[in-house]
Amino acid sequence: MSTITAVNTYDLRFPTSSTLSGSDAMNKDPDYSSAYVAIATNADDGLEGHGFVFTIGRGNDVVVAAIESLARPLVGRNVENLLDDMRTAWDMFVHDSQLRWLGPEKGVEHMAIGAVLSALWDLKAKRAGMPLWRLLAYMTPEELVSTLDFRYLTDALTPDEAIDMLRRGRAGMAEREATLLASGYPGYSTAAGWLGYADDKMTSIAKEETQDKGFRQIKLKVGQNLDDDLRRLALAREAIGPDVKLAVDANQVWDVPQAIDWINHFHDFDLAWVEEPTSPDDVLGHAAIQRAIDPIPVATGEQMQNRILYKQYLQAGAFRVMQIDATRVAGPQEIVLEYLLANKFGVRVCPHAGGVGLCEAVCHFAMFDYLTVSGTLDGRMIEYVDNQHEYFVNPTRIVNGNYQAPTAPGSGVDMKLDMAERYLYRG
Amino acid sequence: MSTITAVNTYDLRFPTSSTLSGSDAMNKDPDYSSAYVAIATNADDGLEGHGFVFTIGRGNDVVVAAIESLARPLVGRNVENLLDDMRTAWDMFVHDSQLRWLGPEKGVEHMAIGAVLSALWDLKAKRAGMPLWRLLAYMTPEELVSTLDFRYLTDALTPDEAIDMLRRGRAGMAEREATLLASGYPGYSTAAGWLGYADDKMTSIAKEETQDKGFRQIKLKVGQNLDDDLRRLALAREAIGPDVKLAVDANQVWDVPQAIDWINHFHDFDLAWVEEPTSPDDVLGHAAIQRAIDPIPVATGEQMQNRILYKQYLQAGAFRVMQIDATRVAGPQEIVLEYLLANKFGVRVCPHAGGVGLCEAVCHFAMFDYLTVSGTLDGRMIEYVDNQHEYFVNPTRIVNGNYQAPTAPGSGVDMKLDMAERYLYRG
Repeated sequence: MSTITAVNTYDLRFPTSSTLSGSDAMNKDPDYSSAYVAIATNADDGLEGHGFVFTIGRGNDVVVAAIESLARPLVGRNVENLLDDMRTAWDMFVHDSQLRWLGPEKGVEHMAIGAVLSALWDLKAKRAGMPLWRLLAYMTPEELVSTLDFRYLTDALTPDEAIDMLRRGRAGMAEREATLLASGYPGYSTAAGWLGYADDKMTSIAKEETQDKGFRQIKLKVGQNLDDDLRRLALAREAIGPDVKLAVDANQVWDVPQAIDWINHFHDFDLAWVEEPTSPDDVLGHAAIQRAIDPIPVATGEQMQNRILYKQYLQAGAFRVMQIDATRVAGPQEIVLEYLLANKFGVRVCPHAGGVGLCEAVCHFAMFDYLTVSGTLDGRMIEYVDNQHEYFVNPTRIVNGNYQAPTAPGSGVDMKLDMAERYLYRG
Repeated sequence: MSTITAVNTYDLRFPTSSTLSGSDAMNKDPDYSSAYVAIATNADDGLEGHGFVFTIGRGNDVVVAAIESLARPLVGRNVENLLDDMRTAWDMFVHDSQLRWLGPEKGVEHMAIGAVLSALWDLKAKRAGMPLWRLLAYMTPEELVSTLDFRYLTDALTPDEAIDMLRRGRAGMAEREATLLASGYPGYSTAAGWLGYADDKMTSIAKEETQDKGFRQIKLKVGQNLDDDLRRLALAREAIGPDVKLAVDANQVWDVPQAIDWINHFHDFDLAWVEEPTSPDDVLGHAAIQRAIDPIPVATGEQMQNRILYKQYLQAGAFRVMQIDATRVAGPQEIVLEYLLANKFGVRVCPHAGGVGLCEAVCHFAMFDYLTVSGTLDGRMIEYVDNQHEYFVNPTRIVNGNYQAPTAPGSGVDMKLDMAERYLYRG
């Protein structure tokens, strides 16, 4: 029996805008930031639950305020009751009858709920002595599904279907786990592609990422100027050769008709996907774009607000690559639902990652999926950017372009807070 | 030449949960609240710009924090430059390249932006000496459209189409303005319908609202228990007679298949609409429901996050009654776009209203629409609930069930802050 004794929050902002790393058609000068929360208990194990929301600077204070407001009432609560019944924890936040007016289930409040629920799952995994990917994979299908909320999803996926899917998914799990621990999970690199980079910087990084570091896909930002895009794509394709995959990312810069026109200039480059052609809210727009640019696949998801949007993208055939994010939705329970939905519709998931812990966090879900949901690595890969890993206790390790499976207990997001402290924002 | 000298915010919470006024299938115990902002300048006129976000209690502090964080940097800014170019003000907030990560354009941050932009429009209308509905109607089509952002809308509506629409809409405007000033704009009453009310309370209020106060439509909350719903609908229909319209509101309680089953029990009651059958994020779900419950119209909008969702509902035929809200989106500019979109698709708009200033605020947009967009009252009406009007300097006046046109300069939301002060929330 132990109780929660403290909830500490941190408004961390890294001045990345000074290097133009992270610059794209919509995000000209991001300062990679983290609204970070640590939940402490009076248990003898001394373990804390950590979680965060990734932002790109301004407004990080508002997310911290939302986390504070949500998590403060946890102080004094019984830890075991909370962790043994994560569905009740979910309901307490996601279905709070007053808080849902602030969404429902979207934006600042939903991301803040995600940080708090993630911190609880982090503590649960640490107490179980397992990395989160393994905890999720080794829960029985019934146990895992009992934590999930199918509200607004049952026209696409029911709890019984989810249990069946997870039961089937367990066949061959031990073998896949061995493969994962031996070789890791494919990553791809966005390092070369920022719009702020000159051509020669772009091509030399592209070569380094693929020839030296072993990534088998790179991604370029596009959408500011068509001629620039065509020149950069030709240069990048030449630099990486025909066998490495090449994706592009427009970061929501276009309207629907403009997206169709622009992307239809890209057919010669054998693109792996076009990412975020327009607003992530536009299901019908993405469906129209996907039809009009066939066979180039549409990808999106890093700013998709919740499982209800993912459901519709899948129902409408609005993308062929689904990109989940670790800190956009309400934590592990919603991310697991996203993977189950994707598998039901036969769509591959290639998670979004990037700065300040996104790589460390999101790989757990891809690995869980490989073990017990899709059971395959085919066409799957996790984005990778080499940013702020040094501030993490167990930073992401890439070998031959593959994410190595984390083995430390927890969700992987523990920061070296003493070291990060110089980036604490003070208004 | 004047500058902004202060931005003051107020976290106001009215303890409405004690009366069950406001109770429905999802919102069991709302405490009607306002995240309120007042912007002061050093101009001789002494005018302030006021705006707010309506919430139902918990989390109101987070919205206040977001408003503070957004509006504080306005102190010291030139007022005339801001008010003369509202499109730049919009871009400054809605398209801030770092802030948009917190949405984009949804949830707490978007609502907070709405409060700040609304406060600027309030000041603009006060300086012009006109109520906001009249300011909007008397701007030239070119002027008004120049303030609007068509990003992500051009597959449905272009600026040129909007200008044409507003030009055509001006025919007969003077006559309609005279009608509006003489008789007002139709309202409807939700007072009888809260789920927490006993049958006899419901029927006696229904009679009072329609026979004494002259409302020609009432609305009941449904969705908690089908037998209760059928009994209450029969009682309500008996109380109001066949000529008064009767709508129902499920407040998002159902999944799609359940909504279809449940609503198809309602065909005998000649319903004006079924409101919020499921999640407001579910365009495809609402489209499926609308097809399956025909001819009962689907209505939704009070929690619709932005113009991109409205666009899709219209494109998909997902509702037949569009309900806008005054404080959910990014202020007057986005609400005007919503009306233009509705008119393009020939769908009627019946605004959501309720407590703490929603009635005072939203009627301006309906009246603007009547003057220069749709030009009709046919099937149009504004929700009315008699809550917290006493805290407003110019409270909504209802005569024979009609909203009387506000004549005071501004957007109508000035509160008697000295009187409301006892409801200031202090954590």
